[in-house]
Amino acid sequence: MVRTPQQFKEMQDIDVKTEHRVTKIDPKEKRIEVVDLSKSETQWVPYDKLIIATGARSRRLNLPGSNANNIFTLKDLQDGIRIRNYIDGKRPKRVAILGGGFIALEMCEAFRLRDLETFVFCRKDLPVGNLEREISEKILKELQENGVHFLTHHEPADFKTNGKDEVTTFETHKASYRVDMVLMAVGVIPNVELAKEAGVELGKTGAIRTDKAQRTNLDDIFAAGDCCEVFNLVSQDWVHTPLGDIANKQGRVAGENAAGGKAVFHGVVGSAAFKVFELEVAFTGLGMEAARKYGFDVDSQVIEAESKVGYMPGSKRMLIKLIFDRKNGRVLGAQMAGKEGVARRINSLAVALHQKMTIDEISRLDFAYAPPFSGTLDPILIAAEQAAKKIRRSP
Amino acid sequence: MVRTPQQFKEMQDIDVKTEHRVTKIDPKEKRIEVVDLSKSETQWVPYDKLIIATGARSRRLNLPGSNANNIFTLKDLQDGIRIRNYIDGKRPKRVAILGGGFIALEMCEAFRLRDLETFVFCRKDLPVGNLEREISEKILKELQENGVHFLTHHEPADFKTNGKDEVTTFETHKASYRVDMVLMAVGVIPNVELAKEAGVELGKTGAIRTDKAQRTNLDDIFAAGDCCEVFNLVSQDWVHTPLGDIANKQGRVAGENAAGGKAVFHGVVGSAAFKVFELEVAFTGLGMEAARKYGFDVDSQVIEAESKVGYMPGSKRMLIKLIFDRKNGRVLGAQMAGKEGVARRINSLAVALHQKMTIDEISRLDFAYAPPFSGTLDPILIAAEQAAKKIRRSP
Repeated sequence: MVRTPQQFKEMQDIDVKTEHRVTKIDPKEKRIEVVDLSKSETQWVPYDKLIIATGARSRRLNLPGSNANNIFTLKDLQDGIRIRNYIDGKRPKRVAILGGGFIALEMCEAFRLRDLETFVFCRKDLPVGNLEREISEKILKELQENGVHFLTHHEPADFKTNGKDEVTTFETHKASYRVDMVLMAVGVIPNVELAKEAGVELGKTGAIRTDKAQRTNLDDIFAAGDCCEVFNLVSQDWVHTPLGDIANKQGRVAGENAAGGKAVFHGVVGSAAFKVFELEVAFTGLGMEAARKYGFDVDSQVIEAESKVGYMPGSKRMLIKLIFDRKNGRVLGAQMAGKEGVARRINSLAVALHQKMTIDEISRLDFAYAPPFSGTLDPILIAAEQAAKKIRRSP
Repeated sequence: MVRTPQQFKEMQDIDVKTEHRVTKIDPKEKRIEVVDLSKSETQWVPYDKLIIATGARSRRLNLPGSNANNIFTLKDLQDGIRIRNYIDGKRPKRVAILGGGFIALEMCEAFRLRDLETFVFCRKDLPVGNLEREISEKILKELQENGVHFLTHHEPADFKTNGKDEVTTFETHKASYRVDMVLMAVGVIPNVELAKEAGVELGKTGAIRTDKAQRTNLDDIFAAGDCCEVFNLVSQDWVHTPLGDIANKQGRVAGENAAGGKAVFHGVVGSAAFKVFELEVAFTGLGMEAARKYGFDVDSQVIEAESKVGYMPGSKRMLIKLIFDRKNGRVLGAQMAGKEGVARRINSLAVALHQKMTIDEISRLDFAYAPPFSGTLDPILIAAEQAAKKIRRSP
C-alpha cells in the first residue's frame, strides 16, 4: 500500500514478488519452495538468509454456519473493504460482534457511524477484560452512551442461515438474535505452520521463539512481526503481542542482522492505546493479576484528575491506575482512560517502566506545566505522590 | 483564590493573616516584624521555623514615562483584571508589548481576541530567543499568521504621555509608534530584599540559595517558590526558573521539612510548555548554546513528522529537535513545536533526562501506538533513531 514493487526495485534494488506463495522451507539445503500463483508454477529458490514475516490471521469460531458469507473478520485492508462493500450493498440493520477487544470496540464506532444497531457478545463481564476493572467500566459506559448493546455471559452456539448462505439469526446458549451481519473479533493466531514444519522452534505462546537479534533456532533464519514472540521487560517473560509498532521494530532488527549487522531488540514494556468513540484508553506494563502471577507484591493507586487546568476549555476528568510493587515501590504498570489528553500521557510511564523507576522517583519528575495541557501537578504526578504516601504509611 | 482563610482555619487549624506585611526578619531572636495593614499596627511575631515564599515581581523598564497609568505588567490575577478593565473601559485600539517571552506571546493571543492591533518589540531577532532557532521561527510564523506585528532590534527609549498621564506614543531609538496601551513583559525579579537584609544567602542568579531540603543558610529558615533557585539536574547547576509547578513542589518539601520531615527536592530538568494561538511549544533540558556552555560535546537532530497517522483527521506536522552529547549519545534536551499533540509528548523526554538516557536507548522505547495518537513510530522515536544513526556514522 505504501510502495509498489516497481518503487522497491528502482529505489533500493529489492525484488518484491507478489502473488507468490511460499509452501515449504528447506533449512538443510537453504531453499524455499515457491508457487507463482499467476502461472501455477512451483520452484525452489535458494537463500543465504531467510526472514520469516508471515504475520497472524484472525481466529474464527468453529460453529454451525461459521462459513456464512456475511460473517466477517478484520485483520487487513481487504477485510475492511469487504465489510464496507457489504454495508454499502446490502444495507444491513443489525450487526453482532463476537469479542470485546480493541478490534471489536473500534468496529463498534464504525458500525454506529453507519447507523447499524450493534450487539457486542463478550464472554467476560466487561469489555477488554484483561484491563483493570476501573478502566473497563469506563469503556462499558462509553459504549452504552453511544447506543451499543453489550451482552455478557453468552456462549455462542449457532448461526442460522437462509438459502443464500447468509446468517439471519445468531443463537447463544440462552437467547437468539436476529442479525444481518456478524463480525468475529476473537483474537489472532500467529501463522507459524510453515516455520514449524521446517523445524523452527515455537515458544509456549505458540508463536515463533527468537532471540533478541530476531534469530530463530535454525541457522540463517530470522523471524519478525506478528508471527513471533517478544520479550516483556517488566515480567521478563516471552509473550505474544501482535502490534504494528513492535512488528516494525522487529523487522528493522531482523533486516539489519540478516545483512550482517548487530542490532538488538531488547523488548517491550507492553504499551498500547486505543480510542472508542470519544474515550481514549492507554496502558503500559502489567495489570494487577498479571503482576501477581509473576510474583510481585502488588498494590495499586487509582485517582481521577482534570486533564488540564479546570478553567481551560475542554478540560475533562481522567482516571489513572498505577500498579506498583509494595516492597520496593517499583512501578509495574499504568492504565488510563478519559476523553481528552490521555493516550499521549502514557509514554512517560513507559519510559519509567523501561528504567525500573519507583513511584517515589516518578512523583518527583519535572513535567512541563502549562494550563492548556495539565494542572500544576500532572495527573501522573498526583497518582504517584498518592501511591508513595500509601507505601510510606504501610508498616 | 482556591481557599479562604476561614477554610484553612476550619479544615486544618492554620491561621492565615491577610493584609499583614512582614517588614523584617530577625533570625537571632527568631521573630518577624509584621505590619497589620488594616490597622497600621506593627508587632514582632516569634517563630520556630520560618518559610520564605515571597515570590517574584514583574521587572519594569526604567524609561521616561514608565509610570504612566496605561503601562501594565502581568504577574498575578489582579494585574490581569486591571488589564481587562482598561480594555473594557477605554477600548484601546493599539497595544505595544515589550518582550518576547511566554507572557508576551500568551498576551498576543489575548489582545488579538479583543481585536487590538498588537506590536511586539523584542531585542532578539526571534521570539523566545533562548529556544532553538527552528522552534522560534515556527512561533514567529504563528504570530504573523495571526496578525501580530513582530519588531526586532528596537531599543526602547521613551514613553510620551498626554495630560492624563497616559502613554500615547512609544519611541524606540529608531522609530515612534502611536499606542493606546503598553504591556511590559520583560521578565521577573525574585523578591529577596527581606531575606537578604536578614542575612539569607543568595545564589549567583540573585535568587535565594537553598539546599535540596529547601533550607537556607540560616537556622530554621526555609525558602520555596519564585524567590528561590532550583537545581538543574542536566547542567548540575543552580538556576532561577520561576514556574508554578516547581514552586508547588518546593513548597511541599519546605513545609514537610519545617514540620520535622525529611523531604528532598532533587531538582528539575527544565521542562516547560506554552501555547501561542494554535501552536503548541514544549521543551525540556538544555538548548545547544547552554549545553555547549556547560562543556558538553553538543550535536542535534531536527525532524518533522505527523502528529498521528497521516490518514487520521486532524493530523498535523510537528517539529522535534533533539540535543545530545556526541561523545556518549546522552540526550541533553528536546524542543518541539506543532499544532496538535505536542505539549504532552515532551514529558517522556523529561523522564529520559532524569534518567540520563542515551539517544539509542530512547529509539528503542516501547511507546503506545494507535493511529489516532501517533504514527507506527512516534516522532520522538524517529528523531532518536536518526540521531543514533548520526552518531554511528561519525568517526
